[in-house]
Amino acid sequence: MTEPRIVEVRRKILKENDVLAHSLRDRFQRSGLYVVSFVSSPGTGKTALLERLLTEMRAEYRVAALVGDLATENDAIRLARSGAPVKQISTGTICHLDAGMVDRALSEFKLDELDFLFIENVGNLVCPSSFDLGENLRVVLVSTTEGEDKPLKYPTIFNTADLAIITKSDLAQAVDFQREFLIANVHAVRPNLPVLEVSARSGVGMKELRQFIVHSRPLSARAG
Amino acid sequence: MTEPRIVEVRRKILKENDVLAHSLRDRFQRSGLYVVSFVSSPGTGKTALLERLLTEMRAEYRVAALVGDLATENDAIRLARSGAPVKQISTGTICHLDAGMVDRALSEFKLDELDFLFIENVGNLVCPSSFDLGENLRVVLVSTTEGEDKPLKYPTIFNTADLAIITKSDLAQAVDFQREFLIANVHAVRPNLPVLEVSARSGVGMKELRQFIVHSRPLSARAG
Repeated sequence: MTEPRIVEVRRKILKENDVLAHSLRDRFQRSGLYVVSFVSSPGTGKTALLERLLTEMRAEYRVAALVGDLATENDAIRLARSGAPVKQISTGTICHLDAGMVDRALSEFKLDELDFLFIENVGNLVCPSSFDLGENLRVVLVSTTEGEDKPLKYPTIFNTADLAIITKSDLAQAVDFQREFLIANVHAVRPNLPVLEVSARSGVGMKELRQFIVHSRPLSARAG
Repeated sequence: MTEPRIVEVRRKILKENDVLAHSLRDRFQRSGLYVVSFVSSPGTGKTALLERLLTEMRAEYRVAALVGDLATENDAIRLARSGAPVKQISTGTICHLDAGMVDRALSEFKLDELDFLFIENVGNLVCPSSFDLGENLRVVLVSTTEGEDKPLKYPTIFNTADLAIITKSDLAQAVDFQREFLIANVHAVRPNLPVLEVSARSGVGMKELRQFIVHSRPLSARAG
């Protein structure tokens, strides 16, 4: 059928993406910039969490954000309320960001003048997993309202992540959220993946998340 | 860059898919079978709604379901609790069902002995939109917890749907759901798209949904 052709074209594209992602990562390192990407289903609460995180981190650090969506500037407008510089990437019909899109969007920022860059991917638990964006920390988010079996059903995205965040902690009781079951499913796919639980609405878990991100940043970058 | 090659390969694949989807649709019609597909983000509640729908409709109709996921048989196991025949389609790394997958899975069923077939797509608001499965009615679901701007951010999936369902109505108050805003956004993308609101947990709206589906089925099929 059509599979072999698609696989071949995909392999070439992924290789090109990897080369560009590596050069992005080098650039980030030279600039002392630490890059964190967020990926999840649509509606998990990436933007709400990121808006709060940017607002809180701005007090101490120079932060900025790139945000991907098929259409609309809605998320960039929401994130800009934090006061941080934000750039929207519109992907049209493409179901994920790639390193080229990130590279082109970076022209908006002076990397040397930033400590942290956050990248919010298109809402999708499948497509973003194969595309390295040059980020230092990839965060997968899953909400208390989505169902505890998501890691088993979308294993690749959990396998390529460095941190899992459970969002909408404030709704846990209303949906009878089975915390231990979700965490067990995360670890069935990716043993030892750190898991944090937050609520962007109530602020629960935000301090731990900020600490996790700040402490993940290498000391060399922090000193610079 | 890589875009022109991808577009060309995609066009050929979509054309092959369309040809197969048309022949599936003909087969369904000859068998007097009405086919309804469900598409949404991961975690919107497709499976919970479908389990309840199959259970309720079985009293009067011969119903069956196909369910797509990257991995696990979890959803087929859940749907089978309804007592209806169910077949899981595992897509591996592919972010949507296509007509070929549906065609191969149909060998499990005797189409002449069914009134309604439900197809639950992979959880994804982007990729499934381009792939005709031969269904008669395409339903896009969005939950009260996902954010009211989803139709604007994922317009293609709403543009290819025949019905929109708001799920998790029981959580509307807890998340301060803005019903009119979501409906306005649905209609900004697709004027006059019917919108129903349901809760698979409480049962609110299930009767209206059953009636909508049953009345969408052509009279010729109902008489057959």
